Amino acid sequence: MMNDEEVILVNFWSSPFGCRVKIALEEKGISYKYIEEDLFNKSSFLSAINPIHKKVPVLVHNHKPICESLNILEYIDEIWSDRSPRFLPSDPHQRAQARFWAYFIDQELYEASKKIYRGNGEEQVLGKNEVLRILKLVEGEIGDKPFFGGDNLGLVDITLVPFYSRFYTWETFGKFSIEEECPKLVAWAKRCMQKESVIKSLPDPLKIYNFIVELNKYLTK
Amino acid sequence: MMNDEEVILVNFWSSPFGCRVKIALEEKGISYKYIEEDLFNKSSFLSAINPIHKKVPVLVHNHKPICESLNILEYIDEIWSDRSPRFLPSDPHQRAQARFWAYFIDQELYEASKKIYRGNGEEQVLGKNEVLRILKLVEGEIGDKPFFGGDNLGLVDITLVPFYSRFYTWETFGKFSIEEECPKLVAWAKRCMQKESVIKSLPDPLKIYNFIVELNKYLTK
Repeated sequence: MMNDEEVILVNFWSSPFGCRVKIALEEKGISYKYIEEDLFNKSSFLSAINPIHKKVPVLVHNHKPICESLNILEYIDEIWSDRSPRFLPSDPHQRAQARFWAYFIDQELYEASKKIYRGNGEEQVLGKNEVLRILKLVEGEIGDKPFFGGDNLGLVDITLVPFYSRFYTWETFGKFSIEEECPKLVAWAKRCMQKESVIKSLPDPLKIYNFIVELNKYLTK
Repeated sequence: MMNDEEVILVNFWSSPFGCRVKIALEEKGISYKYIEEDLFNKSSFLSAINPIHKKVPVLVHNHKPICESLNILEYIDEIWSDRSPRFLPSDPHQRAQARFWAYFIDQELYEASKKIYRGNGEEQVLGKNEVLRILKLVEGEIGDKPFFGGDNLGLVDITLVPFYSRFYTWETFGKFSIEEECPKLVAWAKRCMQKESVIKSLPDPLKIYNFIVELNKYLTK
């Protein structure tokens, strides 16, 4: 990396999407400036760098913004392709498989999980069942490898692991145990938590829980 | 391409997502076998090659399935990287921009457009406004280039152009003119229609309209 490079991550601390970018930057050993965005009072800077969605995370690399977390992960992997680990496999079919699972997690898990802590009664049960269905499908995919990316964290690991710090919230609201239902997946998450890049990036589960309790109160005011 | 390569596209004729794959294969000059899937009576083959979503299109390349249309486009571009055109720019930031717009179109346009021909009254107006908002944002992105991919069809062109054969349906149900609202975008679509790969792949707009009229009757039975 050249010394005059500027890397800025614009994020909100609890975002599992922004957490992906943090892990990716840590894994590649890239120094960056962190800007916390106030999602309850969005800045004009956020509108300027992400005019379509006005959402975090945004990576601003040498004044050029890149939006959408999976897009940012691919960008980081391509720009710093000389730095290990590579997040995507070199074999095109394996790349396509990794992209498929990353987008599957991206599009399904967050929306399903919101039903657990926003919904009541039937909707909450629906959310719990959807989350377990998704997690079990993903668990089936890991097989006997230590990580989805093989021996290193790859695209699918980095996409999924930020949700581990939300398991406590889902379990508390939904009254169920993910470890009982998906023991291999929780074993995988614990392996991820031995990586410094992951420990440094994941928010505290109890802090997430308290934040979501407060957010629910705010949203139903 | 080696002679013993086997390329199969499993699709349903009206799918704008499958149409993307057809255009991509035509652009690269790849011979393939086409299998029409009956979406009203799905085959066990489809469940075997796309167990998660059971949706078309699926590309089966040398017995390996690849699912999700944008993922398939990236795969085709990578596997046949020696064949022009390349669908993605070589510059990482331009690649990220192309992926951003392709995923934006992919996630927003189809769902919004369904409201126009499935909805009534208020929902239909909502759908029309959403579709125009999306098309205008995309139109703003093309600028003065002949195609989103510059001088050739690229990822964003191939993602968007299949919807051109649905414009007639949207306009007829929604009673509006896309050409009046987005003249530059329609000019772009007409430029695309001069490409043999696009002409050969897009279904007839009137056939699409009649199909959607019949589908609506079937769904409300």
